[in-house]
Parts: sequence; structure tokens; C-alpha cells
Amino acid sequence: MEKYDIVIIGAGPVGLTLSMCLARWGYKIKHIDNRPEPTPTGRADGIQPRSLDLLRNMGLKRKIMAYEPAKVYEVAFWDPSANGIHRTGTWASCPKFIDARYPFTTLLHQGLIERVFIEDIEKHGVQIQRPWTIAGFKNDGEDPIYPVEVSLAHVDGSAKETMRTKYLFSGEGARSFVREQLGVKIHHKDPIAYVWGVMDGVVRTDFPDIKMKCTIHSDAGSIMVIPRENNMVRLYIQIASSTDKDWHPRRTATAEEVQATAKRILKPYYIEWDRVEWYSVYPIGQGIAERYTLDERVFMGGDCCHTHSPKAGQGMNTAFLDAVNLAWKIHHVESGFAARHILTSYESERKLIAENLLDFDARYAKLFSTRLPSAGEVGSANAQAVATAAQQHEPEENEFVKTFKASCEFTSGYGVAYNPNLFNWSPFHPAQSPLFLRHQHGTLLRTGRILTPATVTRVVDANIVHLEQEVPLNGSFRIYIFAGKPTVTQRALADFCTHLTAPRSFFSTYSYPAAEQEKVSYHELHNPHSAFFTLCTVFSAPRSSISINSMLPPVLARYRDHVYADDVWDQRVQDAKAAAHAKMGLDEAHGGIVVVRPDGYVSCVVKLVEGKGTVEALNGYFGAFVQKRVGGEIASL
Amino acid sequence: MEKYDIVIIGAGPVGLTLSMCLARWGYKIKHIDNRPEPTPTGRADGIQPRSLDLLRNMGLKRKIMAYEPAKVYEVAFWDPSANGIHRTGTWASCPKFIDARYPFTTLLHQGLIERVFIEDIEKHGVQIQRPWTIAGFKNDGEDPIYPVEVSLAHVDGSAKETMRTKYLFSGEGARSFVREQLGVKIHHKDPIAYVWGVMDGVVRTDFPDIKMKCTIHSDAGSIMVIPRENNMVRLYIQIASSTDKDWHPRRTATAEEVQATAKRILKPYYIEWDRVEWYSVYPIGQGIAERYTLDERVFMGGDCCHTHSPKAGQGMNTAFLDAVNLAWKIHHVESGFAARHILTSYESERKLIAENLLDFDARYAKLFSTRLPSAGEVGSANAQAVATAAQQHEPEENEFVKTFKASCEFTSGYGVAYNPNLFNWSPFHPAQSPLFLRHQHGTLLRTGRILTPATVTRVVDANIVHLEQEVPLNGSFRIYIFAGKPTVTQRALADFCTHLTAPRSFFSTYSYPAAEQEKVSYHELHNPHSAFFTLCTVFSAPRSSISINSMLPPVLARYRDHVYADDVWDQRVQDAKAAAHAKMGLDEAHGGIVVVRPDGYVSCVVKLVEGKGTVEALNGYFGAFVQKRVGGEIASL
Repeated sequence: MEKYDIVIIGAGPVGLTLSMCLARWGYKIKHIDNRPEPTPTGRADGIQPRSLDLLRNMGLKRKIMAYEPAKVYEVAFWDPSANGIHRTGTWASCPKFIDARYPFTTLLHQGLIERVFIEDIEKHGVQIQRPWTIAGFKNDGEDPIYPVEVSLAHVDGSAKETMRTKYLFSGEGARSFVREQLGVKIHHKDPIAYVWGVMDGVVRTDFPDIKMKCTIHSDAGSIMVIPRENNMVRLYIQIASSTDKDWHPRRTATAEEVQATAKRILKPYYIEWDRVEWYSVYPIGQGIAERYTLDERVFMGGDCCHTHSPKAGQGMNTAFLDAVNLAWKIHHVESGFAARHILTSYESERKLIAENLLDFDARYAKLFSTRLPSAGEVGSANAQAVATAAQQHEPEENEFVKTFKASCEFTSGYGVAYNPNLFNWSPFHPAQSPLFLRHQHGTLLRTGRILTPATVTRVVDANIVHLEQEVPLNGSFRIYIFAGKPTVTQRALADFCTHLTAPRSFFSTYSYPAAEQEKVSYHELHNPHSAFFTLCTVFSAPRSSISINSMLPPVLARYRDHVYADDVWDQRVQDAKAAAHAKMGLDEAHGGIVVVRPDGYVSCVVKLVEGKGTVEALNGYFGAFVQKRVGGEIASL
Repeated sequence: MEKYDIVIIGAGPVGLTLSMCLARWGYKIKHIDNRPEPTPTGRADGIQPRSLDLLRNMGLKRKIMAYEPAKVYEVAFWDPSANGIHRTGTWASCPKFIDARYPFTTLLHQGLIERVFIEDIEKHGVQIQRPWTIAGFKNDGEDPIYPVEVSLAHVDGSAKETMRTKYLFSGEGARSFVREQLGVKIHHKDPIAYVWGVMDGVVRTDFPDIKMKCTIHSDAGSIMVIPRENNMVRLYIQIASSTDKDWHPRRTATAEEVQATAKRILKPYYIEWDRVEWYSVYPIGQGIAERYTLDERVFMGGDCCHTHSPKAGQGMNTAFLDAVNLAWKIHHVESGFAARHILTSYESERKLIAENLLDFDARYAKLFSTRLPSAGEVGSANAQAVATAAQQHEPEENEFVKTFKASCEFTSGYGVAYNPNLFNWSPFHPAQSPLFLRHQHGTLLRTGRILTPATVTRVVDANIVHLEQEVPLNGSFRIYIFAGKPTVTQRALADFCTHLTAPRSFFSTYSYPAAEQEKVSYHELHNPHSAFFTLCTVFSAPRSSISINSMLPPVLARYRDHVYADDVWDQRVQDAKAAAHAKMGLDEAHGGIVVVRPDGYVSCVVKLVEGKGTVEALNGYFGAFVQKRVGGEIASL
């Protein structure tokens, strides 16, 4: 019987992302989808700012952008007025108080995004088998290495395959065979439900905001407008809501009816269609799966686990993050680094996010159905928020401003915050050391949150680069050594490297054995010592003053393409001499160590001190979840 | 006999660029090249900052960047020292005083760049016929529309074609059959000549600047280091110079000899080759063709007209600009807009640039062969230059700083400055009006220079965009109406549009006839009225305050995707309320009209005033070179 590392069911965003990561990291994958072709038109299409960061980290952003997607920078609100509708205000889709590289939402139809993933997956030797479906599975443990047996079948029943696998993943979407077989219930947050019509097409109109994202309320009904690639526009039109007198979840409407409704809503403006590319009607309920896995062998993710309204454009983005979260954890367990129990954190981390999403979705809907803010209020919200970010203390805020801020952070993807656990250090983490720094106490970073972006100069070629993007999505922890001023930290840096490379350190324990070490290419940039760590050093000094060979201990000098000068001015910290240090909230002279998870979230922040304390703290941090015992007394806690 | 608009000989950068422009604009092209394949390895590979702007304007930048070229931000200087070589300083490749979107040189091998062009040309229906060569031509005028007869032949002589054409273009490179047949002499600027070796490959070295551009002088000889895509490096090694005692222009050296020399030069550092991708030896002379055309029917461009050292990486960039300059002029003549005599300006404009290039090349060589600046001098040069740009008055500068500044502007491509002529307005232009603004007198723009970049908000979709890139390379003049404050300019803007659309204006005269006008698509963004003009309006006001339909006269409102808010802060004009207006040096309240040539160079700047004066000035400007009489008294001058 054929054996696989993982069998993936479904080639939507979540399945493709998981497949892509694991294919790149060398796993043997069986990937099927029950559709004969990738999504031809329509469906999800919003890539949030944070997701664009992630796509760039995967090296796929340029290919996405080559399709010339629409970009949404602002949202406009329209309300009923005496003669039809009028604009009541606009606000930024990703306001300035969010430190985003790409402060806009990217709109491109799901099929094109899928194609970019599929190309990459195929380049790594995995073919998606279509149209095939899952016929059955059981985790019978008969083979301890490949405990799950899976049966797949051609959709027409003409062929069948049975195999064993380490993992099975369902990215089947809302109707999941796997979820059903497992008996996992969907918990409906709320009895409220809606029926929506969605229409993609090319229009002619004098409605001035047709290229903006708009929410339009009129006496004739409500519409959401979302611009698209190729001069298209998407209209979401609410066809029915459970608050209607004649509510029925199977209510429907024809394209012509929806167009007629749109014409009435948009008055006094006209709208005509040159063509309609896609039209669909679907009921929306808010649901969340009670479990994402029962046994840490059969997993689920994406729409299979959470359904909600498409209004905030979160579905695909949540799917990307579900997949990346699971991918690196499976990788770390299967490659002998992390203990198997870490796989439970997939559900605990991602289910929390899905719950936040559903809560947000409900609030978002309510925000839209109640009074809309005036332009003045929005303006001051923005201004206050920027002031907050700059001054680091909280001004008074009204309820609307708070909801607005919280929403923008959430919809941009930067609001994703994982709770403390073994990966996201907190004072309750097994690793205890006074050297761990907390938010507002020695650092501005928050564990479980995305690393703050920072622009620096790469020493080796003087390129101006985005530090948070310098390590590609390679499955490694990213250890940023903010080395402060070279004259100040010289000793601390030397001590750090001495203890980092000492026999029982987390780093030495998980470095390649000597024989493999010799086979590492001279040209290896990211993983010369270990598949689990990439080390970056950032000096608070001008590039021209930095000499890699003379200022860095050999272990750090080996990452010659990951040595940076923190010498690029940043508008957000205008007075800082070392903007990256300042943005992380680290001392510009003394620096500090920032450990970032393979998916970009901050693991822990540790003071850089002379002696062994810094590495001991890290031994403690990694010791909490790796398979082998590392470090000395701290790891034995 | 088959008839063509143009026959293009040679598919290097100059021929491809010309072919691409004219193919996009709908011309019938015969394009041949005597090589069986595009450049497989090596050759020119430096794309200067200004050329990257141009490639982006052609919509090709993303495809170039997809190959992940190397980027050069800084140049390092190395000199002999007691124990081998040591670094004496570095400076920016494109320093801050140059307002460049992409302040770096992009390195990618010519074959990949050619491939990007060829794909685009093929998409527009032109196939490059290979390996074919030119066998003969004559401008016999027997057909007044297609005055030139051309004979082409397969390189093996197995096939032959004869055709008639409106134009013949030689982009054959240094050895040009066409140039020889025309009897056009190459003028050698200088008896000095060099023999260079050039080697592309992957190396291992502890030389710290191997990923930088370096000029290295040692007692064992000189090298220039240039990083490349795919982890490669190019080394230029001077094998012989006419100042050598045993100088011979046919001197040569093997790859092994060059590698041995490189090893000696780089001491105390080591260097080893993993592989050599390309190696070549060639003598370099400085030459310039006396004429670029004799009859404005048979033209030459690129290396066919100018040869020089490859050190400054200018060859391909000059070729791009030769081609674009010729392309839009041919287009304007053949489409009935401009008078035929404008074609003489191709030679006058481009030959001047080639002469500047050769002068620069000579100075550059001299600069390298004399004392090198210390790091301190370079630092203060940079600081002074920034101060100059910011304060707009000239501090004292020493000879080195001057040469340095002039060189950087030149090598970045931003130093290209066309002299006054019919296209580049000056007080000696036939069009006379007190409303024309001159550099430092009402504007900071200089005619014949590239338009200053500026970031603005596009009103229709709130996207933050680069104004100078908003009109693609569509062959049209770009008319930027900097409309100042709406309340101040309301009347002036209305008057401008009234006179713009009046019967004999340059705009009305060259608008589509009514019958064609009706066929223009609702979705046409750039040329709804005329193939020769794209109109952009920039208000000194926040985006949310701008209503296209109510604030713009219909003619400007029709360019709905070309209306902008000048509301984006710019570090270079920190106190400006309207940064784009400020960077152009236009009054932030009253604005002004900026006319830009189809190739991006400033044509003229005119005050925006109430009444007919503004349009009359433009009638005068265009009246000087269009085929039909336009405007009233001014055009009759």
C-alpha cells in the first residue's frame, strides 16, 4: 500500500497553502480535489494586507500582482437621502495607525490566486488529482508511522485508491465528508442568517465610488460594492434576512431581479451592465466547528471549520493562516524537532481566531445596520489613532472610534493575536528568566503578534530591505539579534555566540551532525547550521561601519546575507537613530534578541546581556517544546 | 511587393524597444536578426534607475524583476595597501539628491531582458525572423508612401525577400551594414583604447564586497566587480591599455589567465570559481557615428551609433532611449499629427546624448585612474547635495564633488537633458507668451528633462499612485493640469476647458472626428478624445473633498481615472501642503499646466490663468510642429 506524509482533500485556499508549504519542505503529498478544474470565476477574492505580507514571504506576491488586481485603500459609506443616496463618509481600509507595508486590500478572483499556488506546488513535484473525492478513512494505528488509512475515489466511481498516511487534512469547504464522519458538530453562533446575491461584471455608471469599496444603504435595500481586476466590479446584495417578515433561508432571486434592485438602490445614479461574469445566491450562517482535530492526525481547516458572511473578505485570509499554522507544526514534529503534543496548539490557536472572526463579523454587520459615522468622526479617529501610535499613550476614545480601530486591525489581518502558550512566551511559560522582556517593559513587541515591519540596509550588498521579509517561509524560527551599538554589545555578542554554540544549547542540539554539516553548500543563505533556525543580526550602526568578518563571531558571520545596518530613517519614529530597534521598542545601544515563529509571529523577546543568561533563557524557551532535552538547569524545569 | 511601415534590422535592446513601441501602436513591422537565438549569456546587463522607470511605463518592469536581478545601491572603492587591497570609501550609486523612484542599478543578463521584450512584441503580432540579415536597400522614392526598398536574406543564403517600407532602422550593433552602405563615418573621440576581459560566474570568496559594485585598483592590476542575478558576479578586468608599453589592440588572454590575475588583484582575499557562465575579451574604442540618418527614412541607433567602455553600464540604457525617442516621432508623423521635419530632431537630440556619454565615459575613466576620494569626502558630497536639493541654492563645491554629482546624475539616467528645440520650449521657441514658465521662474521643472516624480491619490479609487507613471507609454503627449485649489482656480479651469475644446484649438484639431468619437469605448481611460493627448488633473485638495462630476468641466471629467488629489506627504518637501505642486515648483493655490512628451520629458510649463491665454500658449506650442494650422494669431507666427 502506498504511503504518504499527508493526504490533502480539497484544493481551495487552505488545502493549496498547506500543500505548497509541505511540498517545499520535502514531504510526500497526495492532494485531491473533487472539481475537474480550479475555480473558474467568482468566489472569495479579498487578500488582506497581512496576507499580502505572507504571500510575499512565500515568494508569490509578484505573481499575484502580475494579474493587476484592484486595490482598495478606502471604504465609502452611502446612506439614504431625500433624492436617493448620498455619501456620508469614507475611511481608510487599513488606517495609518496600523504599520502595514501594503495598506490596502487586494482584489483578485480566487481562481487566479489558486493558479499561482498550483503552479508552485507542481514545480515542487505534487500534482493535484482531479476530480477525485474521499471515500473513507480511519486512524487505526495499524502502522505506527502511518496510522491513518484513507480511501479515495474518482467522482464518477471509475477508480479507487487506498493508502496509508501520517496525516489527513480536510480543506473540503463548508460541506465536509471528513467532519461529518468524525461527528464534529458545527456550532452556530447565532440564529441570524442571510441570503446574499453576489454578481461580478463590467458596468457603466455615473456612481462616483464604483472603483471604491462601498456599503450602500438605501430605502430600496443595501449593497456592498467591491472593485475587481479587469475593470470588473462585485456587488453583494442582501436578498433576505432572518429579520424579514417572510424570511426563508432558501429564498432566491434571478440575476435580472438583483440588477433591478441594484438600479433602485443606486438612484439618483444609473448603472448598466456590459457583461456579467458570475452570479450566485447563497444563504449565510455563522458557524464554527467544535473541534479542528480529534487525534492530531486528521485535521480540518478553512471553511470546513468556520463559515460567516463574505462582507469583510476574511474567508480566504483565515484559510491561508490556518494552513501555515498547521504546516510548520507538522514539519517540526515530523522532522524531529518539536514534541508531538505541540499539534494540539493548531486547534487552540486557530479556533480562537475563528471565534474572533465570527464575533467581529456579527459586530461588523451591526455596525453597518446602525447609524453611520460622519466624515468628521472618521477623520478624528484616524488622527487620534496616529497620535496614539506615535505617543504610546491612550487618549480618550468614543465607542465608535474603538470599534472602528478594533475592526480595521482585525480586517487588515494585523489583529490576529495568539494567546500565550508554549510558543508565545508569557510570564506563565515554563521558561522563567528575568531576561524575558514583555510588552511595554523593555520592548514594544507582543508575543503571539506579527513582527513589526522595519526597513534596514543589508550589509553585504547595501540593498535597502524589509527586515520582516528577509527570511523566506522556510519553516525555521527566525532569531533576530538586535545587536545595538557594536562598541557597547561586543562582549555580550561574543558571549551569546559562545553559549549558542555550546554543546547542549538549543542551537547545537538541533544543528546538523558534523557529517551533514560538511555537505552544506557554501551558497546556503538561510540554513547553514540547522533547518530550524535562521539567524539575523541587526546593528545600530551605519552600514559602511560594519565589517561582517571582524565584528561578528563566526556563527553569525556565516549568515552573511542576514547582517543588517539599522540606518534607514522611518517616518513613524522620526527621532530614532536606529529605527528598527526603536520600532521594536528595544534599547538602541544594547539591543535584544527577538525570536519569531516560522509563521511570522513573535515567540519571545530576550535581553542581550553578557554571560550565559540570554542563551539560557532561549534554552528554556525552546526546551519547553522540543523533543530532546536542551540547556542546563533551566530546561530541566 | 510586400509593404511595411518599418523594417528593423537587429533584435538587441534598441531594435526590440523600437519594435515593441511601434507594434503596440499598430504599425506593420518586419523585424529580423542575424542570430538564431536571443543572447544566451553575458553582454550588457545594467538597467539604470531612469531606465527602470521607462520599463515600468512600458508595463515590463514586473517581468524584469520576476527574474530576481541583483540591485546595486552602492559602489565601493578599493585601493592598493601594504598587504594587498583595502576599501577607501563607498558612495551611493544613485544618491539621495537625485529624486529617483528606484535608486539602484538593476543587473540582469541581456538575454532575459530581450526575452521580456520579445514576448511583448509577439503578443502584438510581430515575429522576429531569424537568422536573417540585410542584403541591400535604397531610398529610391519610387513609391512616395513607401520610398525605401529593402532586400533581406537568410544568413545561409537559402532564401531572399524584397519589400518596400516607409522606414528602415539599423539596430545592428557596432558592425552595421547599413551604416557602411550609407558611408557614415564613425568618429573616434580619442586615440585611447582598452582591451577588457569580462567573466560571469559563481564564486567563493571572503572578499567582503563581492555583492557590491566595486572598482579595485591594486599593484597587480584593476578589476570592476558587478553582482548579478542567480548568485553570479561579473568581473571586468583590464587586459591592456594603449598606455601600456607593449600595447596592441588585438591583445587577448585566456579565462585561466584572467582568473589568475583576479586572484592576484584581490589579495589578501581569496577567490575561487564554482563555475564560469561566460567569458569574453574585447577591445573598446570610443566612437560615435557622424550621422544617425541621412534622409529621415533610413535611421540608425544603439551601438551602431556609439561605442564606449562598458564600465558605467550605459550601453543598453542609451539604446532604450534612442528607440523610444525615434518611435514616438515616427508615430506622430505617420499618424498625421506632426510635420515630417520633426524627424530631424531624433539625430539632434540623441547624438548630443551620445556625445555626453562619451565625454562622461572619458571623465569616468580618468576619475578612476587618479586619486580616489576618501570616505569623508564622499560623505560630505552626499550631505551637501541633499542640502542643495532641499534649499535650492548652491553651496560651494570642490572639483571632486562636482564631478561626482554630475556623474551620478548621468549614470542614473536622470542627467539626460535635451536642448531647446520645437519640442522643448525655451524663450527662443516660435511660441511666445508671457505665460510660459521657466526653471526657477514659476516652476522648478526644466524643459527637455524628465518629469519630477510625485506621489498622489487617485480620486476614483483612492489608490496612492506615482503620477509620472499614470499614463502608460501610449505615444500621447501628457498634459498635466495642476489645478491648484479648486476654489481659486474654478474660473481658470472652466476657461481652460472652454478654449481647449474651441474649434481651432490644438486639442479640437486633433480630436477624433465625430463619427469615430462615438465609437470610443466607455471604458477607454487614456485616449477618449485623441490619440495624441492624455489629460490629467491634479487638485491641491484632499481626495475626499474632490467630486469629479461637479468640480471638473466635462472634457476633464471624461478622464475620470486621471484625476488626482495632491494630498500625500513627501519627505523632500516636508512643509508643503500639496507636495506634487511643490515639487514641480508650481504655486499650490494657482497650479499650472505641465506638458510632457510621450517619452516623459518636459515640453513646456504654462501658467493657468482665467481667459484664453493658457490655451493660446499651448496652441502656439503645438502649432510649431503639427501638420495642420491650429489656434488663432499665435499659431500663425
